[in-house]
Amino acid sequence: MPQLSNRAVEMPQSPIRKLAPLAAAAKERGVKVYHLNIGQPDLKTPQEGLDVLRNIDRTILEYSPSQGFKSYREKLVDYYAKYKIHLTADDIIITSGGSEAVLFAFMSCLNPGDEIIIPEPAYANYMAFAISAGAKIRSIATTIEEGFSLPKVEEFEKLINERTRATLICNPNNPTGYLYTRREMNQIRDLVKKYDLYLFSDEVYREFIYTGSPYISACHLEGIEDNVVLIDSVSKRYSECGIRIGALITKNPEIRQAVMKFCQARLSPPLLGQLVAEASINASEEYMREVYDEYVDRRKCLIDGLNRIPGVYSPIPMGAFYTMARLPVDDSEKFCAWCLTDFDYEGETVMMAPGAGFYTTPGAGRDEVRIAYVLKKEDLLRALFVLEKALEAYPGRTC
Amino acid sequence: MPQLSNRAVEMPQSPIRKLAPLAAAAKERGVKVYHLNIGQPDLKTPQEGLDVLRNIDRTILEYSPSQGFKSYREKLVDYYAKYKIHLTADDIIITSGGSEAVLFAFMSCLNPGDEIIIPEPAYANYMAFAISAGAKIRSIATTIEEGFSLPKVEEFEKLINERTRATLICNPNNPTGYLYTRREMNQIRDLVKKYDLYLFSDEVYREFIYTGSPYISACHLEGIEDNVVLIDSVSKRYSECGIRIGALITKNPEIRQAVMKFCQARLSPPLLGQLVAEASINASEEYMREVYDEYVDRRKCLIDGLNRIPGVYSPIPMGAFYTMARLPVDDSEKFCAWCLTDFDYEGETVMMAPGAGFYTTPGAGRDEVRIAYVLKKEDLLRALFVLEKALEAYPGRTC
Repeated sequence: MPQLSNRAVEMPQSPIRKLAPLAAAAKERGVKVYHLNIGQPDLKTPQEGLDVLRNIDRTILEYSPSQGFKSYREKLVDYYAKYKIHLTADDIIITSGGSEAVLFAFMSCLNPGDEIIIPEPAYANYMAFAISAGAKIRSIATTIEEGFSLPKVEEFEKLINERTRATLICNPNNPTGYLYTRREMNQIRDLVKKYDLYLFSDEVYREFIYTGSPYISACHLEGIEDNVVLIDSVSKRYSECGIRIGALITKNPEIRQAVMKFCQARLSPPLLGQLVAEASINASEEYMREVYDEYVDRRKCLIDGLNRIPGVYSPIPMGAFYTMARLPVDDSEKFCAWCLTDFDYEGETVMMAPGAGFYTTPGAGRDEVRIAYVLKKEDLLRALFVLEKALEAYPGRTC
Repeated sequence: MPQLSNRAVEMPQSPIRKLAPLAAAAKERGVKVYHLNIGQPDLKTPQEGLDVLRNIDRTILEYSPSQGFKSYREKLVDYYAKYKIHLTADDIIITSGGSEAVLFAFMSCLNPGDEIIIPEPAYANYMAFAISAGAKIRSIATTIEEGFSLPKVEEFEKLINERTRATLICNPNNPTGYLYTRREMNQIRDLVKKYDLYLFSDEVYREFIYTGSPYISACHLEGIEDNVVLIDSVSKRYSECGIRIGALITKNPEIRQAVMKFCQARLSPPLLGQLVAEASINASEEYMREVYDEYVDRRKCLIDGLNRIPGVYSPIPMGAFYTMARLPVDDSEKFCAWCLTDFDYEGETVMMAPGAGFYTTPGAGRDEVRIAYVLKKEDLLRALFVLEKALEAYPGRTC
């Protein structure tokens, strides 16, 4: 057979994926695995979203418009207005998950060889989409010591050259749970303005901010409206990751026109997912509050529990439902694999996402793991206990 | 704002898309538009597919596996076996429509600058996916005079150079309805073998073959199993274009491993669509036969009708539900626009896809249109009548 493409070879396989067969093998041995590794909430999808399927009266499941249903986009206008993001339905393009929004943003805005600055640790799949577009990620380090806050603007400017075309933030952040402050967002705004960069802002966790700090969207920043592309998804908001509905939002008609070419090539976003997402906007305030309160509880439970384990440290995440924690281990990739292959406590073990997968800098994140708090509190407590036992038994423990 | 990517600029906007606002304006004027331009069947989705939604008992619409549900892939194994395509569930990767299968095949197998040979006229979106991957389409002409049969192998060989990496066929063909013969498929096999090319074969219309001629899948060709990537979709098969479920199938584990990296980056194919597609495999033979018989009738009705209009010629399509017809007009893009802007007969007009959109060769297809037979027979008859009247009135008529 002929050679595969260079991008296919270059494309990283995420460390979580490498662990998947180990987890499957552990389960086959009868070991119970607590999944702290994934961002799949165990909370129910809103009843409104499920009911629209149960009551479907269509007889042909036909193409929907490439931009997404207008009725859905109009409802989203009201949704965003609650967050003081003022849009028209035309500003919104419905995508197959937030993933496709990132891919189409990169494909539309970045040439092969163009550079995009992303604070790390970062969601691992940005790398895959950058490789798909032939773009190069330049990482700017944030550290667990500084709670993953943004470094000074000078650190950004050191990375800027004639190929720098964009910066990307995830806010609230996956994997750190960090929420950018007004000062940080203004810093990003000034940078974007000064160097005329695209600002891709992935804000899929805006519902989950726990500190009372204000949510500053990239869409709130004045004077860079034509540079901002908002990436969104209903996956986490309504616990409906499987329906694959996201959005790409920009006030810039030229970007929209470019993105729409990619949208038209793939014909349409999922019809059924759009029906569910549109209905889910009607989820009751009670539902949304219950979900929120549940995450508040779990967050406290997880972070308190982690910081009580000797040698473990987690900052307090301000949003989303992840934390990057430091473990007293030689190599978290080894440790996470060991938990699945060589360890169990009373027939139970934990699966976590090794930190290195969220960094492009070699060696970074080797003593960190990403932990998602998407399990019930009693399961989280038990998982924390099992983790403590694992750390006690692990031969590569460092302190 | 910074510049858009070159690929976004280069990406063509399909002629149909350019006509869409004209059609909308015609409808606003109260003109009835017969849509002969699209591949959206008006036939019902199988009841089994709809029932699975009505009876859904899931409470969380969660991620499905990146490769697609195993239960669905196992059912597909039986489906393909009926066509003497012998697979295991591992050979099958579920995608977001056939579109994503084409994109991931190109992204995995083609480097920027690599060339792919495609007989034209061809489905316009292959071009968009080639541009996304940075690959270059080299078109090999097939002509209406020869019923769109493949030219001799020498014509292919003229295009082959050190950057040639693949060939792509669509069989039965969109837009021509042509079905490749045993001799033609063997010719492709020999070419693929001799030059070690990838063979991407889009066979989404295999249910719709009307001539009793054998369906030769790329998967039936011996000795090139590692080079073949089958592109599939349930959109047309079950009239469920909106659920966005396709498949990428290959016996080559290296290709699958590469494609899976792209699949993992986008997390999962649509959950709900997979449920519908899996249930639709149970569609009754009666349903499938009724759909088939309906297309047989419509095909006869359309082709007879076209060839009765003075100056119009259509070959007889052997499969799919399209034909490329020649019209006695100066420029079919102008004519199709004129039908929407300047013409109606008793308040009715027709919308067709201009031929040029299916060719990369400049000037090719200027007197051709693609017509889909996805309307009821009485509507097709009326549309043919309106088309005849339009041709009589069109100022750019050539004969």
